[in-house]
Amino acid sequence: MEFISGIKRKDTVTISEILENGAGNTVELTGAVHTIRDMSEFAFVVLRRYDGVVQCVFEEGKVNFDIKSLREGATVKVNGEVNLEDRAPNGFEIRLKNITVLSQPAKDSTMPIPISKWKLSTSLETKMALRPVALRNIRERAKFKIQEGIVRGFRDYMFRQNFTEIRTPKIVAGNAEGGANVFKLEYFGKKAFLAQSPQFYKQTMVGVYDRVFEVGPVFRAEKHNTTRHLNEYTGLDFEMGYIDSFYDIMEMEQSMLDYTFEFLNTEYAKELKTLGVTLPNAKKIPTVRFDEAKKLVSEKYDRKIKNPYDLEPEEEILIGQYFKEEFDSDFVFVTHYPSKKRPFYAMDDPEDTKFTLSFDLLFKGMEITTGGQRIHSYEDQVTKMQERGMDIEDFTHFLMIHKHGMPPHGGLGIGLERLTMRLLDETNVRETSLFPRDVSRLEP
Amino acid sequence: MEFISGIKRKDTVTISEILENGAGNTVELTGAVHTIRDMSEFAFVVLRRYDGVVQCVFEEGKVNFDIKSLREGATVKVNGEVNLEDRAPNGFEIRLKNITVLSQPAKDSTMPIPISKWKLSTSLETKMALRPVALRNIRERAKFKIQEGIVRGFRDYMFRQNFTEIRTPKIVAGNAEGGANVFKLEYFGKKAFLAQSPQFYKQTMVGVYDRVFEVGPVFRAEKHNTTRHLNEYTGLDFEMGYIDSFYDIMEMEQSMLDYTFEFLNTEYAKELKTLGVTLPNAKKIPTVRFDEAKKLVSEKYDRKIKNPYDLEPEEEILIGQYFKEEFDSDFVFVTHYPSKKRPFYAMDDPEDTKFTLSFDLLFKGMEITTGGQRIHSYEDQVTKMQERGMDIEDFTHFLMIHKHGMPPHGGLGIGLERLTMRLLDETNVRETSLFPRDVSRLEP
Repeated sequence: MEFISGIKRKDTVTISEILENGAGNTVELTGAVHTIRDMSEFAFVVLRRYDGVVQCVFEEGKVNFDIKSLREGATVKVNGEVNLEDRAPNGFEIRLKNITVLSQPAKDSTMPIPISKWKLSTSLETKMALRPVALRNIRERAKFKIQEGIVRGFRDYMFRQNFTEIRTPKIVAGNAEGGANVFKLEYFGKKAFLAQSPQFYKQTMVGVYDRVFEVGPVFRAEKHNTTRHLNEYTGLDFEMGYIDSFYDIMEMEQSMLDYTFEFLNTEYAKELKTLGVTLPNAKKIPTVRFDEAKKLVSEKYDRKIKNPYDLEPEEEILIGQYFKEEFDSDFVFVTHYPSKKRPFYAMDDPEDTKFTLSFDLLFKGMEITTGGQRIHSYEDQVTKMQERGMDIEDFTHFLMIHKHGMPPHGGLGIGLERLTMRLLDETNVRETSLFPRDVSRLEP
Repeated sequence: MEFISGIKRKDTVTISEILENGAGNTVELTGAVHTIRDMSEFAFVVLRRYDGVVQCVFEEGKVNFDIKSLREGATVKVNGEVNLEDRAPNGFEIRLKNITVLSQPAKDSTMPIPISKWKLSTSLETKMALRPVALRNIRERAKFKIQEGIVRGFRDYMFRQNFTEIRTPKIVAGNAEGGANVFKLEYFGKKAFLAQSPQFYKQTMVGVYDRVFEVGPVFRAEKHNTTRHLNEYTGLDFEMGYIDSFYDIMEMEQSMLDYTFEFLNTEYAKELKTLGVTLPNAKKIPTVRFDEAKKLVSEKYDRKIKNPYDLEPEEEILIGQYFKEEFDSDFVFVTHYPSKKRPFYAMDDPEDTKFTLSFDLLFKGMEITTGGQRIHSYEDQVTKMQERGMDIEDFTHFLMIHKHGMPPHGGLGIGLERLTMRLLDETNVRETSLFPRDVSRLEP
């Protein structure tokens, strides 16, 4: 009988192993042929690996291999001597002794876009259509490493703060956020929806673990084809019990962002450098009331307030601009949104029930978070639902948690792709989704 | 202007802070009233918190509070002196001085199930219908802490092995696994599906990052109402390039499981003890060929082989039993599944193309993983698709990766709920899904 026991050590090395061991050694490593530059006497073969690119030098006669037969997109295992070379990526090159081809691209295929260029200067449409290969570009893939880092920072911080990670269903019977922008689905003869948020479930789980978080897909059937909407995105959600006020939630978010940026600076320095990104400061975030924010912007930028109960995207941009100019902050918490603009589970401000104990976080003038305190009393929740003409019979399972006791609680949802977009100063949220879904895009 | 800057320190303490500081101190802590036992002279008030339960002692006259007004399900902030008491959970109790009620359950509500009992000895149906409150039971919630731990162990190990975490779309145009068990959805006038697996996308991302993993929901429109099927479950998926053979994938899984069990033993010892779970040994996992496994079981248990190209659930159970009896292993890799039972992207065994370079992992007689090597050559992939009568035009984006070069690669998908089920010796997979989805269950 044969047994599997442990990962077998390979002869191949990583870039950091090469850097540790220095020049003069003969090493073996794998990679994809990123580009070949034939200089007649010799050729540069640049390999693309998960940990960077490696410049290999092919000299005629020194390798038993016909360089003409090597194609971009092939994957290889090479063997050669490490040579220090300041002009090469990571400060070294490999003087090739041997090349073994592991796989070949299709016969007669040519790369539809020059992925080995530093910047892919093609249209968004082309980049999206060719996404499966366009992502092989070094800068493209660096974006999603940083996105990975944001999620890691978020999760790390949540665990440190005693949150429990949960996974809640995406096929649901009800419609948490209300409104029409929900995808419908046939579920064994019953009508079902795709979850617009884990709202009911995360509140439910506060009754179980006091503090919970989830990182998962969120579905919105928005018909808007804008630069900041996706029909499927990643929600970073958390919900916490035993809060004294909704300020506890904003403090948790500000501290998490601060932690995450530090984490990115430490763990993703290479990718930040690749993209030339300077991270914002989140050590101190100003807060302003919704009505006050509208007034400040109206005064400073000489702009009429059209609707006192709603924020237009242009107003969000101006609020962002205001707090950048006045307080040098890329972030601002806008608090106390009007009750009619918030869902039925939002807690009204007892001081003025036209407003709620809620907030949005704006990052460079764009909303990246919505959060607030929720109603915990059964009687209050039922009353608010009835005032809105909702049928409480449709919410039996949700109301079960209030009926049997819930601590004062609240939480928030962050749009990962928007946060990444603002961090990287991208102008379209599609740039920060691996395979974006929009009104006209269902593939790749 | 007001600023948010850091989490404000609360006066309340955690169980571990109480344990560190010892007896005699007066502390303040929050919790939900889990149960009240009135002993006439005094009463025990047990609080439920994320970090355990705390026994509080209420003595008439010592607290300015009417214990008769305290109800199960209320949440409170209490204040009292820490007193060592061997018979209490964690070895201490709080002698109450003060109780502040933070929230109340609904007027006249009573708990529909005794969640404070050690075991919820109600039917599965009742437990599921009352899931939002049933999960507050200490043993119920311990299950999902262990599930959290499995995912953490998986992710940690993947990061250590230089995998990149990805998030791929769940609304898709194509149908990766083939077959009819796919949920359909209306997508702005187009036909779309819910992803049955991240297969195409994770292969695509191997071309970008060499090694990738994803933890996300997977949707299967299975009509079977069995103890081991869910219509929505969590997939732990990974995919890795530059493999020498599919043995690399099995080694990665075995090492990950071994790491994860160690991680659970260290970080989730309390929950393992709560549930009385002894973790299996995954240091060494036997492998057996599919055809050989069928023969061994047929011989030992005197059972006719009905279909040489398929494994029946009963055969899986017997294979599990065989390797437990003969090698004392709870796990067994069954390799070389018949080609006709595997999807079009599976690589056939060059030694016998009726079989594939693939495997399942059985855990206590149940399949928890399917994996294998994939086809990397464009020409081979197109040929296999054409042999199966597939239209390659439907797979343009998937074939783009082969066309422009893919390393030899493979991967696997693990069903998280099944793995948890087997680990905890549960008999129904619904027990290890927070809010299970099956043919008749769309709520809660």
